Amino acid sequence: MQLLDKLQWRYATKKMDPTRAVPAEKVERIIEAARLAPTSSGLQPYEILLVTNPDVKRRIAEVAWNQQQVVDGSHLLVFAAWDNYTAERINHMFDLTNEVRGFRNQGWEDYRQMLLSTYPQRDEAVNFSHTARQAFLGLGAALIAAAFEEVDSVPMEGFDPAAVDAILGLRERGLKSVALLPLGYRQEEGDWLVKLPKVRRPRAEFVTEVA
Amino acid sequence: MQLLDKLQWRYATKKMDPTRAVPAEKVERIIEAARLAPTSSGLQPYEILLVTNPDVKRRIAEVAWNQQQVVDGSHLLVFAAWDNYTAERINHMFDLTNEVRGFRNQGWEDYRQMLLSTYPQRDEAVNFSHTARQAFLGLGAALIAAAFEEVDSVPMEGFDPAAVDAILGLRERGLKSVALLPLGYRQEEGDWLVKLPKVRRPRAEFVTEVA
Repeated sequence: MQLLDKLQWRYATKKMDPTRAVPAEKVERIIEAARLAPTSSGLQPYEILLVTNPDVKRRIAEVAWNQQQVVDGSHLLVFAAWDNYTAERINHMFDLTNEVRGFRNQGWEDYRQMLLSTYPQRDEAVNFSHTARQAFLGLGAALIAAAFEEVDSVPMEGFDPAAVDAILGLRERGLKSVALLPLGYRQEEGDWLVKLPKVRRPRAEFVTEVA
Repeated sequence: MQLLDKLQWRYATKKMDPTRAVPAEKVERIIEAARLAPTSSGLQPYEILLVTNPDVKRRIAEVAWNQQQVVDGSHLLVFAAWDNYTAERINHMFDLTNEVRGFRNQGWEDYRQMLLSTYPQRDEAVNFSHTARQAFLGLGAALIAAAFEEVDSVPMEGFDPAAVDAILGLRERGLKSVALLPLGYRQEEGDWLVKLPKVRRPRAEFVTEVA
């Protein structure tokens, strides 16, 4: 399967070439993969910030252990999950669904009411834990898409989320950063990881069969 | 990009054909995609249960709102995240890395010590939130892989995790179920969703450019 070759090709790029920019159409297809990825109840409870501004990238790098890929990559995707589920957010997605499909369905409306009577009342931390997981599924789709575009990427959690949120004004929008994904092209000289083998637990340690 | 076609093709299959089984080699490649997916610090803090036993699938369906895809799909993947980070788990991955690469590197050993002095001491809920996110990235890789194999799948969070953990004996192994992924083949008659258009927020509501 071609996908497995792409997963073997990709790696957590440690050094990106600051002189090469990813073409805009590739970036758009990478974002589109995340947009099309499934989410729980189809709520898409996260957004992506597409950062190309050099000053903003530099400020984010400063609160991300100065990882240079943040500035050397031509594009930085910031995955920002909803801080909470609200009735407004849930209704927006159900209304959009009705609009796109052109009809209302009682089963779907009952499902809306079930979510409305459950999610907004739950603890905010429980909801954020749930929205962040959806963002990570989309992050997976985006980094696989990058590999298909032969674009290097490196998923990062090593940053100060509150500081990134402040830089990008996310909290005011009800969002919290959960992952960074710099996009660019590997610069093999200076990348200590590029030539090393990928390490994963063997299948026997990863899978249990219940037959 | 072929990946976008695959993401358009897939959907949350509502009715699976109980008479058709997914070939074992396809299931293996789907699992392999998850195994190769990246995780934070390469720790791979989750496992997959591959359930084919009909009785076990039936018992899981009972605690998953009787969603029939759990029993009608020939294979059920259960994504189970580590309940916590421990020194033993962290050391195991760093030791495996040294073994595979055939050398020890001081920078890598310093990074091990940094994790050992941080993760095990953190609140268990914080760590589980972190491991569950990694499992969702792998879930994304698996459901994309299924689409490449032209295998239908449906990611599910609508189940009682504690009950699934009890059925599979996960808690004793330091694992907690976070997602189900039945694999099978769509049965178009009886699937209310198969003919409906995919609904996603438009790009303008999903992406903010910081240029």
